[in-house]
Amino acid sequence: MTALATNDFHRPADLDQDLSTQTLRTAFSHFPSGVAALAGIANGVKEGLVASSFTVGVSLEPALVSFAVQNTSRTWPRLKQADRIGISILGEDHTMVCRQLASKDGDRFAGLDIRANDHGALFLDGAALWLDTTVYSELPAGDHKMVLLEVHGVHDHSSEYEPLVFHRSAFRNLRTAEGNQ
Amino acid sequence: MTALATNDFHRPADLDQDLSTQTLRTAFSHFPSGVAALAGIANGVKEGLVASSFTVGVSLEPALVSFAVQNTSRTWPRLKQADRIGISILGEDHTMVCRQLASKDGDRFAGLDIRANDHGALFLDGAALWLDTTVYSELPAGDHKMVLLEVHGVHDHSSEYEPLVFHRSAFRNLRTAEGNQ
Repeated sequence: MTALATNDFHRPADLDQDLSTQTLRTAFSHFPSGVAALAGIANGVKEGLVASSFTVGVSLEPALVSFAVQNTSRTWPRLKQADRIGISILGEDHTMVCRQLASKDGDRFAGLDIRANDHGALFLDGAALWLDTTVYSELPAGDHKMVLLEVHGVHDHSSEYEPLVFHRSAFRNLRTAEGNQ
Repeated sequence: MTALATNDFHRPADLDQDLSTQTLRTAFSHFPSGVAALAGIANGVKEGLVASSFTVGVSLEPALVSFAVQNTSRTWPRLKQADRIGISILGEDHTMVCRQLASKDGDRFAGLDIRANDHGALFLDGAALWLDTTVYSELPAGDHKMVLLEVHGVHDHSSEYEPLVFHRSAFRNLRTAEGNQ
């Protein structure tokens, strides 16, 4: 382990700071991640949202993915009534689609190329991956709930569409880290 | 919504398939994500692991991040006894470091440039971001547990180090999605 001189390290003054929401948001923005849109038909109405803190591979048996939703969300209480929830991992041409689906006003689905399966799960054309899911559980997580979704089917479009990556509050693409292999 | 002809859509035969572990792993690999290493000193011993399904921004008040750990993990029961757990978001030069920390054999920390803070949280030099955390809760998630960690401090190195991205079982770097802005 590197020997630590007092002035060699970021002291608790740095690492135990009173974290403002802005400091946290900026720090969190440095973690790169794909972007997931969740959509389904609930009570005959299309409902959808862009998931924050989405992640795959939470469990394999059963197959679980997760996302975090604000306790104050008005969309989630409606969307979760859908029999199935389609998850689309947004593709690299989905920058504007993401903004539209995340907007608070207007018809989030207007003009989008979406598809339904027989269970009412909704998917976006141009996505890198589709997951057909149901709600497995909702767990308390501070000012959010952690929602676990069970995966019943997958459809991989990755040979056609590379996924979008959100990083530093911007959309980015991937390149192979050739120098690091 | 796009009209759906029967042969126009991926039928339940596709989207309700019996999902093998390999099918799931391959599908999940198409979701790109940064890579987090968790490390701390527990009972006087350095403990660490590479987190799967790590995500930030689970909650802002309190500040929570999460990762999924197999119920059968032998490292986590030791690591979670650390007073503080350091999280390092791996940088683009960390390809080999990631493999070493994820290995099951040998000293995972041998030769690595690591630093401790006064609470015993351990961090990797060359990381894009450090988070100083404690265990907040552990929640059931199938064959894994979802672990929520409370963030007490952040240190941003992103002006020096871009984060590594794991995608399709390979390490990749980021480029700005200029065409999509």
